[in-house]
Amino acid sequence: MSDRSCLTIILAAGEGTRMKSAMPKVLHEIAGLPMVAHVAKAAIAAGGTDVAIVVGRGGEAVRKAVTPFAAGAESFEQVERLGTAHAVLAARAAIARGYDDVLVMFGDTPLIAAAPLAAARKLVAEGNAVAVIGFRTDVPAGYGRLIEKDGRLVAIREDKDCSPEERKIGFCNGGLMAIDGREALALLDAVGNANAKGEYYLTDIVEIANARGLKVTATEADYENLLGINNRAELAEAEAIWQKRARRETMLSGVTMIAPETVFLSHDTEIGADTVIEPNVVFGPGAKIASGVTVHAFSHIEGATVATGSSIGPFARLRPGAELQEKARVGNFVEIKKAVVGPGAKVNHLTYIGDAEIGAGANIGAGTITCNYDGYNKHLTRIGAGAFIGSNSALVAPVSVGDNAYVASGSVITENVPDDGLAFGRARQETKPGRAKALRERYAAIKSKSRG
Amino acid sequence: MSDRSCLTIILAAGEGTRMKSAMPKVLHEIAGLPMVAHVAKAAIAAGGTDVAIVVGRGGEAVRKAVTPFAAGAESFEQVERLGTAHAVLAARAAIARGYDDVLVMFGDTPLIAAAPLAAARKLVAEGNAVAVIGFRTDVPAGYGRLIEKDGRLVAIREDKDCSPEERKIGFCNGGLMAIDGREALALLDAVGNANAKGEYYLTDIVEIANARGLKVTATEADYENLLGINNRAELAEAEAIWQKRARRETMLSGVTMIAPETVFLSHDTEIGADTVIEPNVVFGPGAKIASGVTVHAFSHIEGATVATGSSIGPFARLRPGAELQEKARVGNFVEIKKAVVGPGAKVNHLTYIGDAEIGAGANIGAGTITCNYDGYNKHLTRIGAGAFIGSNSALVAPVSVGDNAYVASGSVITENVPDDGLAFGRARQETKPGRAKALRERYAAIKSKSRG
Amino acid sequence: MSDRSCLTIILAAGEGTRMKSAMPKVLHEIAGLPMVAHVAKAAIAAGGTDVAIVVGRGGEAVRKAVTPFAAGAESFEQVERLGTAHAVLAARAAIARGYDDVLVMFGDTPLIAAAPLAAARKLVAEGNAVAVIGFRTDVPAGYGRLIEKDGRLVAIREDKDCSPEERKIGFCNGGLMAIDGREALALLDAVGNANAKGEYYLTDIVEIANARGLKVTATEADYENLLGINNRAELAEAEAIWQKRARRETMLSGVTMIAPETVFLSHDTEIGADTVIEPNVVFGPGAKIASGVTVHAFSHIEGATVATGSSIGPFARLRPGAELQEKARVGNFVEIKKAVVGPGAKVNHLTYIGDAEIGAGANIGAGTITCNYDGYNKHLTRIGAGAFIGSNSALVAPVSVGDNAYVASGSVITENVPDDGLAFGRARQETKPGRAKALRERYAAIKSKSRG
Repeated sequence: MSDRSCLTIILAAGEGTRMKSAMPKVLHEIAGLPMVAHVAKAAIAAGGTDVAIVVGRGGEAVRKAVTPFAAGAESFEQVERLGTAHAVLAARAAIARGYDDVLVMFGDTPLIAAAPLAAARKLVAEGNAVAVIGFRTDVPAGYGRLIEKDGRLVAIREDKDCSPEERKIGFCNGGLMAIDGREALALLDAVGNANAKGEYYLTDIVEIANARGLKVTATEADYENLLGINNRAELAEAEAIWQKRARRETMLSGVTMIAPETVFLSHDTEIGADTVIEPNVVFGPGAKIASGVTVHAFSHIEGATVATGSSIGPFARLRPGAELQEKARVGNFVEIKKAVVGPGAKVNHLTYIGDAEIGAGANIGAGTITCNYDGYNKHLTRIGAGAFIGSNSALVAPVSVGDNAYVASGSVITENVPDDGLAFGRARQETKPGRAKALRERYAAIKSKSRG
Repeated sequence: MSDRSCLTIILAAGEGTRMKSAMPKVLHEIAGLPMVAHVAKAAIAAGGTDVAIVVGRGGEAVRKAVTPFAAGAESFEQVERLGTAHAVLAARAAIARGYDDVLVMFGDTPLIAAAPLAAARKLVAEGNAVAVIGFRTDVPAGYGRLIEKDGRLVAIREDKDCSPEERKIGFCNGGLMAIDGREALALLDAVGNANAKGEYYLTDIVEIANARGLKVTATEADYENLLGINNRAELAEAEAIWQKRARRETMLSGVTMIAPETVFLSHDTEIGADTVIEPNVVFGPGAKIASGVTVHAFSHIEGATVATGSSIGPFARLRPGAELQEKARVGNFVEIKKAVVGPGAKVNHLTYIGDAEIGAGANIGAGTITCNYDGYNKHLTRIGAGAFIGSNSALVAPVSVGDNAYVASGSVITENVPDDGLAFGRARQETKPGRAKALRERYAAIKSKSRG
Repeated sequence: MSDRSCLTIILAAGEGTRMKSAMPKVLHEIAGLPMVAHVAKAAIAAGGTDVAIVVGRGGEAVRKAVTPFAAGAESFEQVERLGTAHAVLAARAAIARGYDDVLVMFGDTPLIAAAPLAAARKLVAEGNAVAVIGFRTDVPAGYGRLIEKDGRLVAIREDKDCSPEERKIGFCNGGLMAIDGREALALLDAVGNANAKGEYYLTDIVEIANARGLKVTATEADYENLLGINNRAELAEAEAIWQKRARRETMLSGVTMIAPETVFLSHDTEIGADTVIEPNVVFGPGAKIASGVTVHAFSHIEGATVATGSSIGPFARLRPGAELQEKARVGNFVEIKKAVVGPGAKVNHLTYIGDAEIGAGANIGAGTITCNYDGYNKHLTRIGAGAFIGSNSALVAPVSVGDNAYVASGSVITENVPDDGLAFGRARQETKPGRAKALRERYAAIKSKSRG
């Protein structure tokens, strides 16, 4: 496959009005990635080389969404909406450059895998002018049927146009197809609009190609691959299917999920073997978890790297730039942002660590806050190896606490603490015997007066 | 329908012993609302005017539970339990006032919708003396069958009394019915108790009405509408059905739910289009979320109002009286109670804001606590527009921080800060070089001694 | 049953390579308990007396895992892997001691209940030499069939060896069996290895016993009981089945679970009637919750005791040693570890309480931290009855705050506060009018310069 050039045309101009959204439909996400990017990713994985997107409103945003996977993606605006063949021809300039294969996909079928795309392209490589991707179902009513004869695909027939015999066919049109790049423009240009809606239908090229004596065929994919998303309930169903697949793969690779149905992965989540994920864990994009990690319940991890033997949560949040080194521990109600937590260091309770470096084996007490923002700029906090930060301390950045240094509980640290140094930054306690009682009695008196 | 008066009688006197609860069964909640209130709400939505509840123990609490939907609801105590017809007659005084329709419902069928109630009332308006609400099932065994003849309902036959032919009938009694108000008392009074249990069965009025030459009919509802709750497993099943319905409606209205099965709505939750709800979000009663809001994972929102463009969570809790204005941000491990967060203001980390007003664009640092309670009273904290509250500060209410004022990190603020003012309330740091090392060595010495 | 001695042999030597784990397969957990411990627990519940485990790698850890349920459990190493009969004979020394019954079980079938084990032992007590536990299925392909004749079990036939007639049999081998202890060794020693793989199969003893004129029979169990775990997806499925069973039992006993599918119980969780569990609650091992408690959403409870009328969460974490007394309240973002929270005491917001005693009715303000660790040792904090701890205070242990004492907000408390005493430990505020404005302008100037 790799020696054949391929233009993937992704149709993404649909209004998607049933989404009821200000955002173009194909930008709605599955597993933290826009639908249209899933589609482009599959095309590239199937050996696709170039990507053209046919867009309507929000076109540039749509194009940008696929560039992480298809750097040179082009977009073509479909100004009028005159049918799928018309949409494909919006990319005429790209098709005209000449490709071995032209792959037509839809921006709203995010669960498409690479395999059926590769299969369709292989059929074109083997001499078919068109290879349509279909699916089989026991309840085909409503779908276009793939009409085969002598091993060839002779037509795609809309449900309403089917004969009683054809209506029984369970092999249905999935919409996607691969076309021989040398024939593509001629076939598309031959599509007419002499039909009820006056539209140019891409499916017509099957009959046109047959009429020209070209070979046409179909390949089968699982229905899920072809699931089109039209409203947010369907979006959620596709997300559910994606998650189920990904969780299963993750478990079979050696990761324990106590309740997989409560763990949400992103499109790029990486988790090593013998890691245990407790219930209710959400992975945003960019999480890389090594093996032998325990992710306790109610953890939220995004853009973070976690090394072997670490323990996270429950109720922990790792934000982008968090890096936990070997055997680090991040406990409950703790937020880590853009910070390195050194090997064996502990940040166990009610703490915010932002823009910081914490050395090996340091112990960060409960309620510690790195004051990284002064209202104008963000500043760095450095905590040395073996340092001890007493509970409820505030570290006012930029500031550094040296190796094996000790910060007393309840301190506000505004100046650097040297290695092995001890720092206090708290007021001395004053105690007034009996005063609480007096206060209580005074309040009681006021209350009784205000009632009296 | 609106021109016909209607008395809805809700039977709610059952002991509900299988609930194993000290609370009356019909007060157990679905979507944050007692079952019996769901029932009353449906009756009112179907054009009901007056509500009478037949109660046993805990009667006044039951009556109160429906008053938000049926202000003038009356309760009638059923002292002895002698069957459903006997229960309905506990409300004799109300029936006797004269209504066009009498609607008999059960307090433990919380999923009943307005439509089948309205349909039954329409059938009465069209000349039927009784209109029973039934459901169809493929496995009718155990249910009373609706025996129809020449388009009329002639009897409700208990499963054990059915002929082999009748046993095949899949149209079953749902228990609810509308009765012509002019006939109701006469029909109910004609019910006898000459049966094995010696009880007065409401279902008998079907045959009685037929015997009197009155027209009787049945209308069909989905089974879910008629689901009766007898134990807490069934309560959870009804909750699941309710949630599934509500989530689907919410998604179709333009709200994204990444994992709808993990989002819990209340009976009165309002969410605008293009709002995104991440996994694991719980809405308690009284949440109003505008459009274009992002509710991140692990958020808990109750009695709170959230304006367009706001962002909540992950791990945020909005309690009653929280009001987030446009583009406000409330982040992780933050609790907001009875407080306004102004437009664009940020409360991002580990903070408690209670009884407060935060101005537009103010920035509240990590670990900030409004000390709103002095052990006797709650007091107000006012933070001005553009103010900056340094991390780990305590604001001891009543106190106000002016517009564009600045509070240094780690401060305890007990006095007002003027507009543009700067306030410190923290001790100066003292640093003792080498002292941490000395301390460490001393501890090590003690330990080695205690071992020695 | 109780008068018969029983040796339970648990086969647990399998490599479990599909788990892709450094840990022996049978130590992977269901409901917080290793699979092999579930198996031992069921055997003991069925009246088992002694337990022998046949182990491979990690043998001692496996033996230890069952000792909480079977104190004197012995382990026997199976050095070579030559089939199930060979594995059972690894425990020859134990069998040779002489037992009434020998029960053969597998370490990787964690959902086995006591009932089918007891049923099989009863069949042996009634004169059968062997009683095999089987299950019925509509899709038996792949399973060994239980071949019965004249009410006796005559053979266990592998799927591939079945005649077309036998292939239709839906009664399949579950692997477990009870053997008459007087016959066990003789039967096991008679098993040969003249088969394709050259292994000694335990199932062969059925035909051997029949050949010797001994009675052999089978008893039926639900399929779930016999579910063997081979990879982590199957582990998750077994966990799901366990949880579903346990949640249902819990609800039927009078506990409300709004969304049972989001509540995770441990093998030893105890919850009293009329307790309400909101969505998303995780119980680790050792949780004892009384009746009439409310556990709000997003709570994590492990090794903790909670008395009647208490309220927990949302977002609360109770760790081992937490003891909430009557009507105590623990609120959001609060962690309690090894601490007593007295009757009616409140710890409502953003607090860490570790190694502490809180008296009746005390009020712990938001953001309070017990500084229980000084880097060397853990120390105790005592808070008296009726005491008030102002928000954002740090209590540096060892320290005690007396009954009805009052700690001002934002204090660092390092010395004891007497009963009725008032303590301050915070700096006095300094306010500089206009200084924030000046600061802002200075920053703006720097920024404009750096751009210029």
